[in-house]
Amino acid sequence: MIGIDWGTSSFRAFRLADDGAVLDRRQASRGIMSVSDGKFADVVQEFAGDWLKAGEARILLSGMIGSRQGWRESQALQCPAGVENLAQALTPVPFDGATIFIVPGLTTRDAHGTPEFMRGEETQIAGLLPSIGGEGLVCLPGTHSKWARIADSRIASFTTHMTGEAFAALSQHTILGRLMQGDESDEQAFDRGVARSVDSGGLLHHLFGARTLVLAAQLAETGTRSYLSGLLIGHEIRAALTGPSDQSIHLAGEATLCALYARALAAAGRKTMIASDDAAVLGLARIGGLVKWT
Amino acid sequence: MIGIDWGTSSFRAFRLADDGAVLDRRQASRGIMSVSDGKFADVVQEFAGDWLKAGEARILLSGMIGSRQGWRESQALQCPAGVENLAQALTPVPFDGATIFIVPGLTTRDAHGTPEFMRGEETQIAGLLPSIGGEGLVCLPGTHSKWARIADSRIASFTTHMTGEAFAALSQHTILGRLMQGDESDEQAFDRGVARSVDSGGLLHHLFGARTLVLAAQLAETGTRSYLSGLLIGHEIRAALTGPSDQSIHLAGEATLCALYARALAAAGRKTMIASDDAAVLGLARIGGLVKWT
Repeated sequence: MIGIDWGTSSFRAFRLADDGAVLDRRQASRGIMSVSDGKFADVVQEFAGDWLKAGEARILLSGMIGSRQGWRESQALQCPAGVENLAQALTPVPFDGATIFIVPGLTTRDAHGTPEFMRGEETQIAGLLPSIGGEGLVCLPGTHSKWARIADSRIASFTTHMTGEAFAALSQHTILGRLMQGDESDEQAFDRGVARSVDSGGLLHHLFGARTLVLAAQLAETGTRSYLSGLLIGHEIRAALTGPSDQSIHLAGEATLCALYARALAAAGRKTMIASDDAAVLGLARIGGLVKWT
Repeated sequence: MIGIDWGTSSFRAFRLADDGAVLDRRQASRGIMSVSDGKFADVVQEFAGDWLKAGEARILLSGMIGSRQGWRESQALQCPAGVENLAQALTPVPFDGATIFIVPGLTTRDAHGTPEFMRGEETQIAGLLPSIGGEGLVCLPGTHSKWARIADSRIASFTTHMTGEAFAALSQHTILGRLMQGDESDEQAFDRGVARSVDSGGLLHHLFGARTLVLAAQLAETGTRSYLSGLLIGHEIRAALTGPSDQSIHLAGEATLCALYARALAAAGRKTMIASDDAAVLGLARIGGLVKWT
């Protein structure tokens, strides 16, 4: 089969063997925002046409391709949901020469009733489930970090934190950005930001501290980027951490970012496991294996 | 005397009678960032030259004009500090035809030892002190909101919250801004944002909720700006509120913003008093009255 992780800004296609092994892969900056006039079929032909000619006839899509701005809007399943639920709620897309399905997204409510949505991350988490073993806490750090609680081998609930996007806006469009010098990471400054996040005073006050520490010559300007990163990741972790304190957190995503989260979680006394494989591919293979293709 | 509130982006000059009454006033977009080559004296001549010719010979400056980027760097006095302390720690500026002094800024440490600075707000608070009556809590909302605790008629300590600047960055440079429609304020959406800030989950999670509520059709796109405003102001208030719960909060600043803070503080069960007069002018007059000009 062919699995495609198709997000807002990225397109990654995989030719998969029956056992989930990756036979071939393609990657392009053809996220859904780059595709005009709904010509998604053309993109599939361009990047997977030769695989189809070679006999592939099954395509599974996950990600924002199933959003209102994508090819066809897929469902948003209510949590709790497991891999079987995902495989049974696919949205077909008419396509000449292959059967195409889109994996559903998920929805839940946070502890106070505010709705939550994910689209794409459910497939990554589906890929991680076998290594989690029934119960656990997953963190997918990024622009909109997702934290998912796993219970009975299903995604029981999740929350989103706008950490990556807030970091970009604050570091590029506030006085903090004007202080920042260089892109180098500074582990000590990161750790100080994480430690600061535990203080009372609130995030909006802590943000200003990144400036006053520099003014007071207690933080180097070259460290402000890492300090801000530690501050925001620390606040996210503090708000998102739940469950028994001896429970490992399963991290998946961009390697550098996962390493920062692991560092901040270690400071909070938590153990972590970083997924070494591409969770999206694992999930596409796993869900695809349960689909009734005919 | 002449009092000048000279900030980063604004310049406001007042001709004051001995009793503090405002005889005349000038305002211009001549904040220190607009003045090149350190030609601050030219700006004074341009906007107050006729007052000097008419016999004024005393000029008191407050604000970022006393910062490293200003005319001359003034001191940063350690809290606690009262009006007398401010009036005794002025920085003289050589000027042909008048005696010019700059009011010092203030510094303190928050509960966890992080340094804090203010420059300009100490003068506003000095103007409010007579109406506060010895003990109280002051909030000056804005780009960098200041909360000051007053004890024994002195500024005992203060904290800064980057609320206004975070609001601007988040509303202009994140996905939340793309949702926003219109500039109209929506009191109900503001109140919902304030109420949300009390929930557990953290600010970074609450930010994403502004998006999911719209996706779930539980918040109108026209309400997202006010919702975000309520969320941030609510988080600031929650972190900054200290002292006895029956103590009024003294607000001073831009009228619309003060009204929003009063609304959010009322939701937190706190009474407020909004200063009806320009606190900076009151403070310049009050400090100026204690200065030994000769």
